[in-house]
Amino acid sequence: MKIVVLKFGGTSVGTIKKIKKVAGIIADYRKKNFKVIVVSSAMSGVTNELVKKSREISENFSDTEYDVLVSSGEQVACSLIAGSLIHKGLKSRSWLAWQIPILTKGLHKNSRINKINKNKILNYLKDGGIPIITGFQGIDDEERITTTGRGGSDASAIMLAKFFKAQKCIIYTDVEGVYTTDPNKLKKAKKIKVISYEEMLEMASLGAKVMQPVSIQDARLNRINIEVKSSFVKKSGTLITKRSNIINNKIITGISSTNNDAKVSLIGVKDKPGVAASIFKPLSKKSINVDMVVQNISANGKETDLTFTIKSEDLNKTKKIILENKNIKFRNLLLKDGVSKISIIGVGMITTPGVTFRMFQTLANEKINIQVISTSEIKISVLIDKNYTKKALKALHKEFKLDN
Amino acid sequence: MKIVVLKFGGTSVGTIKKIKKVAGIIADYRKKNFKVIVVSSAMSGVTNELVKKSREISENFSDTEYDVLVSSGEQVACSLIAGSLIHKGLKSRSWLAWQIPILTKGLHKNSRINKINKNKILNYLKDGGIPIITGFQGIDDEERITTTGRGGSDASAIMLAKFFKAQKCIIYTDVEGVYTTDPNKLKKAKKIKVISYEEMLEMASLGAKVMQPVSIQDARLNRINIEVKSSFVKKSGTLITKRSNIINNKIITGISSTNNDAKVSLIGVKDKPGVAASIFKPLSKKSINVDMVVQNISANGKETDLTFTIKSEDLNKTKKIILENKNIKFRNLLLKDGVSKISIIGVGMITTPGVTFRMFQTLANEKINIQVISTSEIKISVLIDKNYTKKALKALHKEFKLDN
Repeated sequence: MKIVVLKFGGTSVGTIKKIKKVAGIIADYRKKNFKVIVVSSAMSGVTNELVKKSREISENFSDTEYDVLVSSGEQVACSLIAGSLIHKGLKSRSWLAWQIPILTKGLHKNSRINKINKNKILNYLKDGGIPIITGFQGIDDEERITTTGRGGSDASAIMLAKFFKAQKCIIYTDVEGVYTTDPNKLKKAKKIKVISYEEMLEMASLGAKVMQPVSIQDARLNRINIEVKSSFVKKSGTLITKRSNIINNKIITGISSTNNDAKVSLIGVKDKPGVAASIFKPLSKKSINVDMVVQNISANGKETDLTFTIKSEDLNKTKKIILENKNIKFRNLLLKDGVSKISIIGVGMITTPGVTFRMFQTLANEKINIQVISTSEIKISVLIDKNYTKKALKALHKEFKLDN
Repeated sequence: MKIVVLKFGGTSVGTIKKIKKVAGIIADYRKKNFKVIVVSSAMSGVTNELVKKSREISENFSDTEYDVLVSSGEQVACSLIAGSLIHKGLKSRSWLAWQIPILTKGLHKNSRINKINKNKILNYLKDGGIPIITGFQGIDDEERITTTGRGGSDASAIMLAKFFKAQKCIIYTDVEGVYTTDPNKLKKAKKIKVISYEEMLEMASLGAKVMQPVSIQDARLNRINIEVKSSFVKKSGTLITKRSNIINNKIITGISSTNNDAKVSLIGVKDKPGVAASIFKPLSKKSINVDMVVQNISANGKETDLTFTIKSEDLNKTKKIILENKNIKFRNLLLKDGVSKISIIGVGMITTPGVTFRMFQTLANEKINIQVISTSEIKISVLIDKNYTKKALKALHKEFKLDN
């Protein structure tokens, strides 16, 4: 069976008019002799509205009931899509996660899909039906409804593609694909035709909000080709696939930048095992997300300097935690708000020497000072003053030939 | 186990504030050492909103998907109530119909509860939990979601009371109980303390919208005591119970009246078997609800006159059907809009002679002409000009001592 999984995000099914459009997209795939499995999110705004209701009941609203509450949104969207296809004369029906069932493991509000019972859906596909499956949810061992966390419909789609050995998983969303950089920040940003899982993972981690990193990782592990595209325009999107499928003549695939970061430097930290943990453990406990971490080589073998970035909004909280925690020892604390992390990403840099130099030279030419540097196999990140973000993006985008 | 079933209608759970109030009512019952089973409708307005969405997709929206769509409303309400009770420190959880399961028979959109699996709920009650069960729905043999028609949460409550042998079923709604007549039409209307199933059935059929007749009938057949009361005020409501439980010194329990009725008379209809059917079949097919039907004894043994009432809005449609249907034969067709049906209801009339006379005399004193008369064991209905409705209600309410 030639199976394709189509996943529609909340904005794609945000109104009845859009749902009808989505039904048209599904019908087109059906005509191409694909067996189509559809996964849908809740209509945009619905989940937030339900979460708001739960908070009005209690700031500590029960996790199990939260899952029952918010999972209703996908039920509504799926029945409307199925109804729309039936109206078009197609055989379709909604499949709620418990009816399949989709089994999950882990905590409520944050489960992971563990197993999908294939029998019913396979029979339904063989009978020519188009199943419309509720994303973002499953049931646990006790038949209680679970959800897979925000953005979890992508995870549902990837896992369905895996279990049903789909040829492709198409993620329909409100953007046309993945861009070389944020089009809101740089007009010359271009849609990327094809990108590797690894590059996409870096892009997602760095704020390209097209897909959750966990779903990209699942796709990578299961070698599932993903296409990210818009449900509003008839244009091809971005294909996310394995490296060997990509004939790339560009060294750099994309450039990302963060906003509203702050830099924290601890000067004169004891250079011994467990020190970093003693610093990050209390921050983690208070849900402060530490991003970039850089530690220099110890000059005298006794002390070192540790720098990390956090969101600007967490700066005061972080300062308080560091100053009040007696286990964190250092000589001096430097705090700097208003920094931005610029990252260039590309598998091409593995085989191309001099990329680092070209990045630094480009920034130097623009008289942009580099505060901190961090590199991985396919990514180079630098911290700069946030006022130079656009300037840096523009220069790097040109330097690495992403403008055309 | 001393079990009570509490059912909350849409207006009772219409806002978060009201849901918190409902949680308070449930907690109070729990304190009285009752095992409490809760059934909830969707938050008011939600079901209509969902139905509207389905109609925007298609005027012939799939019945099976309709059930999936609208049943989501109860899921939301139940999780919020359970969450609110958990917040109060009580053991509670939502139970969706499929989790119990509640099994139904019949068509989608209009199923009837056939069986309720008691094990899980009984164990949960024994463990001290308060189950919050989605009303209005169940699953069929194929595990597809079904609904029991509008107002179906009452039916769910009655069936739960039956299967769990509850001592009482309390229907919380937005009115304080059942009244001697519509308080909007007559200020002197009084709340009825206790009423028999049979009287309540007549009242419900005649437009007292407190409960659906089918649920009252289910309660009657299973001898379940129902209390109808308001979730907004702490006052006792109306007890609906079997006749033998009622010590009633009133002949008449209530008076009802209809609005916007029209009268259709077919003069000179052949007096032979199958004639009435030939008239009402095409009307039924077009979903025209025929209410009062009166046929006079045939004067000459060959012809008779047939009169029935319908809603005013159906008058033109009815006229067209009768005139266009060749199987309906008559000499003359009389149509009259603007009639009202006034009914007095009471088991007391069985043992009290002269009730009919008193009713007719009271109307005669007010110079109100009676157009058609129809009686049953515990009800007398007359058709009058609708302009005299209030006058008739006032006079009859006084005559049968319902004013005090």
